Amino acid sequence: MEQPGEIKKVSMAVIKRLPKYYKCLGELLRKNAERVSSQELSKLLGFTASQIRQDLNNFGEFGQQGYGYNVSQLYKEVSKILGLNTSHKMILIGAGNLGQALANYTGFTTHGFNIIAIFDTNASLVGRKIKDIPIYHVEDMEYFINKNDVDIAVLTVPRDETEKIVKALMKTGVRGIWNFTPAEININNTNIVVENVHLIDSLLTLSYHINESWLQERLLKQKR
Amino acid sequence: MEQPGEIKKVSMAVIKRLPKYYKCLGELLRKNAERVSSQELSKLLGFTASQIRQDLNNFGEFGQQGYGYNVSQLYKEVSKILGLNTSHKMILIGAGNLGQALANYTGFTTHGFNIIAIFDTNASLVGRKIKDIPIYHVEDMEYFINKNDVDIAVLTVPRDETEKIVKALMKTGVRGIWNFTPAEININNTNIVVENVHLIDSLLTLSYHINESWLQERLLKQKR
Repeated sequence: MEQPGEIKKVSMAVIKRLPKYYKCLGELLRKNAERVSSQELSKLLGFTASQIRQDLNNFGEFGQQGYGYNVSQLYKEVSKILGLNTSHKMILIGAGNLGQALANYTGFTTHGFNIIAIFDTNASLVGRKIKDIPIYHVEDMEYFINKNDVDIAVLTVPRDETEKIVKALMKTGVRGIWNFTPAEININNTNIVVENVHLIDSLLTLSYHINESWLQERLLKQKR
Repeated sequence: MEQPGEIKKVSMAVIKRLPKYYKCLGELLRKNAERVSSQELSKLLGFTASQIRQDLNNFGEFGQQGYGYNVSQLYKEVSKILGLNTSHKMILIGAGNLGQALANYTGFTTHGFNIIAIFDTNASLVGRKIKDIPIYHVEDMEYFINKNDVDIAVLTVPRDETEKIVKALMKTGVRGIWNFTPAEININNTNIVVENVHLIDSLLTLSYHINESWLQERLLKQKR
């Protein structure tokens, strides 16, 4: 059996906190901060100092007793852990409302994620551009991905078209799918990683909490 | 000290699974399924049957030994838990690309979430409509919320404008903020619930996993 050896399995909770470290350190860098202690990071991030030290220890020994962390060095390390030392080529599949919004959004470029092409089945969109990004027909997707070393496919197609697109993507060298469709994508035994943004789930979670706080209030009022 | 008493604190992990139950039961209803066992739900959802029984037991005794769950009854119960027995009035603040995409999206209406107004500071947008939803000036937001019993504010403004908008919202009867801005919103001591959709965090998480699987592959190759 093959054993990957040196790569430590990091818990999902730690991974989910990494973007927060990255963004916070980026802010500190912009403010020309040279060093930062875990206590200061704790105040900025809302995690405890010991949590922060533990989290970062997963990836190496970055801090120094009595000194804290060197901001620019830690920023570079966290960037590297997040795979941001190279830029990423993305394509967007589905030029509907959400697809257009994402294509128009410039916030990803700042972090090295560039949408280089958009694909759609709608012939009337093919040949047009959104913010200089050309729209091609989905038929040309596989060829384009492999020719241009695309890393990430952003999926903003309707639910019913998802499976077909995912099957096509599995034949390519794509490494990651950023899934905005309501469909759940299960692709085991591949090297493709999936990250879901299920907007409706997020809205339902909000609704749950609103309902809960509402019930809580009513109970409190009854007790008075 | 006041004790809310009967409302049980449900873990975040369970809450995050509720939308999946809700959607799966909705699908079963559309297929006219009358009853479903926890084993069948397990196959559809990918959680174990005992996990499913435990999750649902948090909210009451819905299943029957040997029979399983009545689909339409359980769907109604889960809907109620998610606060979907009443419809929700939403406003959208920020009519930029993402705001427009969300305003154009019809998937929320299906679940009883209706965007009834859009607010922006851009005078050239005020007076226009997106899909029959009027755009007003942000100045009129507080008055509108309280007059129309708005439940949820969807935030799609730039980072720098977030704090000001949140302060204004705190003076209103809004119950929930669905935050699409990159800013973290901390509003303690209020009845307002916040749910964040940090797109960039999600993209960075994807990038982390791609990087990890890449390192893993390289290690495996070295070992051969």
